[in-house]
Amino acid sequence: MGKGFTPAARVSKFEKDVWSIFTPLAAETKAINLGQGYMNFGPPEAVQKAAKEAIEIVESNQYSHPKGRLRLRNAIAASYSPEFNRTLDPETEILVTAGANEAMYATFAGYLDEGSEVICIEPFFDQYISNITMNGGKPVFVPLRAPERAKDTIISSHEWRLDIDELRSKVTDKTKMIVINTPHNPVGKVFDEEELLAIGKVAEENDLIILSDEVYDRLYYPPLNKFPRIATLGNLWERTLTVCSGGKSFAATGWRVGWLIGPEHLVKYSFAAQTRVVFSVNSPCQEAVAAGLEASLTQPIFQDQIAAYLKKREILAKVFDELELPYTVPEGAYYILVNTVKIDVPQDYSFPEELDSRGGDFKTCYWLTKEIGVAAIPPSEFYSKEHWGLAKDFARFAFCKTDDVLEQAVERLRKLKPYIKK
Amino acid sequence: MGKGFTPAARVSKFEKDVWSIFTPLAAETKAINLGQGYMNFGPPEAVQKAAKEAIEIVESNQYSHPKGRLRLRNAIAASYSPEFNRTLDPETEILVTAGANEAMYATFAGYLDEGSEVICIEPFFDQYISNITMNGGKPVFVPLRAPERAKDTIISSHEWRLDIDELRSKVTDKTKMIVINTPHNPVGKVFDEEELLAIGKVAEENDLIILSDEVYDRLYYPPLNKFPRIATLGNLWERTLTVCSGGKSFAATGWRVGWLIGPEHLVKYSFAAQTRVVFSVNSPCQEAVAAGLEASLTQPIFQDQIAAYLKKREILAKVFDELELPYTVPEGAYYILVNTVKIDVPQDYSFPEELDSRGGDFKTCYWLTKEIGVAAIPPSEFYSKEHWGLAKDFARFAFCKTDDVLEQAVERLRKLKPYIKK
Repeated sequence: MGKGFTPAARVSKFEKDVWSIFTPLAAETKAINLGQGYMNFGPPEAVQKAAKEAIEIVESNQYSHPKGRLRLRNAIAASYSPEFNRTLDPETEILVTAGANEAMYATFAGYLDEGSEVICIEPFFDQYISNITMNGGKPVFVPLRAPERAKDTIISSHEWRLDIDELRSKVTDKTKMIVINTPHNPVGKVFDEEELLAIGKVAEENDLIILSDEVYDRLYYPPLNKFPRIATLGNLWERTLTVCSGGKSFAATGWRVGWLIGPEHLVKYSFAAQTRVVFSVNSPCQEAVAAGLEASLTQPIFQDQIAAYLKKREILAKVFDELELPYTVPEGAYYILVNTVKIDVPQDYSFPEELDSRGGDFKTCYWLTKEIGVAAIPPSEFYSKEHWGLAKDFARFAFCKTDDVLEQAVERLRKLKPYIKK
Repeated sequence: MGKGFTPAARVSKFEKDVWSIFTPLAAETKAINLGQGYMNFGPPEAVQKAAKEAIEIVESNQYSHPKGRLRLRNAIAASYSPEFNRTLDPETEILVTAGANEAMYATFAGYLDEGSEVICIEPFFDQYISNITMNGGKPVFVPLRAPERAKDTIISSHEWRLDIDELRSKVTDKTKMIVINTPHNPVGKVFDEEELLAIGKVAEENDLIILSDEVYDRLYYPPLNKFPRIATLGNLWERTLTVCSGGKSFAATGWRVGWLIGPEHLVKYSFAAQTRVVFSVNSPCQEAVAAGLEASLTQPIFQDQIAAYLKKREILAKVFDELELPYTVPEGAYYILVNTVKIDVPQDYSFPEELDSRGGDFKTCYWLTKEIGVAAIPPSEFYSKEHWGLAKDFARFAFCKTDDVLEQAVERLRKLKPYIKK
């Protein structure tokens, strides 16, 4: 191999990601995969129908406008204007992206220069970090912390707290952006208005952009009856880009249709980057997502979906109740973070060497996948190494699965009984 | 607007691209758009059918493996192994990308560091340049030149020549990669084995990666009966990444499904970058492209397509014959480059100011779009400023349109008659 083939520094140090370990492991061991957060059910009937219709129309198989198809931008404006308490302009304030992931990538590409710092709240979605560093940026971390009692009792995701003074202490003259995620993966926390305003104040004091990852915005649970968005508070609209996901909203994670909402002066450079990175987004699935959002204006699609997910949360949670394993009840999204400190993984169990360099929770999740037959994700992947300790006693279980698969997982998880310390 | 909102240097100097000028202009003026290279017809029936079936299957709406769906990677291996004279490994030598564009972006992201130089042959596809500079690279240019007689007579695209000594003179110790494009957009040139070997020799002498953009690989015209691929010559496989396009192959430019073929040691870091940039590619359309490639193994899909495009080339070319406008007969792809030097655009015509800072061909194409009612693309967009002069007398017409639309365009182009200088 020629020396000329050496990779760019930006990719040469990538570690094997958590998905590349646990997704194949789940497949090999025939574990029920509650690891990766994809659905084992399809998009709503009306949305599937619209996708099939789009395939039959010539124009919806050809290039879309790089901003996104007009029908979809109009549907986003119609659906989100009430959510944002303002009339969104589909020409300048909405950008359709190749999934929410690429919305974030394009925003980092559009705003970060060499050495720009981006504050990320831990646990973070792992792609943020590479998306930041690939564009010359430096992630700076501030953790959410579970209360002490999380190791003994069931808590609400709301009890995971961000220390605002700690956040403020991370700002330097190189800080460009704060990334938040609400409803939060994997904690399930929905940040309340007071918390969002406090974060917003730090951003305003330091003239920072807020990038708000709200891909689970259609999935929040009672007693919450409104999802607070940072872009709607005070004057924060002008400094906030909000990221949303067609895949999460319509059970179609493989469609890669997301969108970005924000003021023209911010959307502008995410758009400049995205036009060059992917040029445009899959056309027929844009039509289908548009149909879904249009339908949601007159039909209770999202309300029905919330009811279905509430039931799923209940099915999965009950086994942890039975096992007396403490967990975090999520206010939103579709993950349960279980405290594993009471699980007695056999001392002499043989683990693959590659896990030695990872957080301790990788071993617990490996053992769960292989011996109990249910794959979960170790959340230390979502913390900086310095803070791995904060995650070592947790495992993330996704409940975006059909009820029968969740019931089967429950059945298998009951096998944990003899391994639970009293 | 806060000073904190300043964009990254990598996007702040982007100029308005040619598509953002001519696509809206064509729409506003109701010109027939032979500018942008998208089809006004849909994918083959079998491919559409497969897309609709995929929408009905749960798994083909969820995340695909970041490498691409196994069915598609297997279909690519089956279809391209004979083309590459080797058995392609779908696990390590094939990467499905979010369109060919993102294949190139991910490769630049995977291999370029700050100051890495990439040699681009002019005319180039405009996205190359931003994709290189966004990743810290510096494009270095070497032109294809038309023969002198192109201003008087019809020539073959083969007569556009690359000066290999000129190419060699552009190599420095920072050169990392040579980008080639065959069949070539907009010239239509299909590089022959001798030309490819000469380029390959420069790459070998200097240990460079070859990135071969072959998105029109299924569209080459008789008397050519084989499409030469640089990756198949000598030992060039080991240093070549080949880029292909589902959109171009199956008349579905809006699907954003492309792929990269190459040795494991090169595919590896394009893959590392792509996993982070887009994570994965639209799932149902991957299934449909797989079905198309599978069908092409037993049905003459590509042969029929070539026959259809030959007819289209003929329909469009005849009007330039009538008008006695010299042009380049393309050996491949779906563009005719017409020499416009004989067109007498009225001296006192009023052009928008934004065209003053562009190549002279922007004005000719603007006038053609607005006054003749047929949009064409000025190829100086595909040259460095220094070489705009090489393009100033040409206009690119796309013939990837239904025969009736081409006939309508021909009708309109006949209105050029009184403007042709003798």
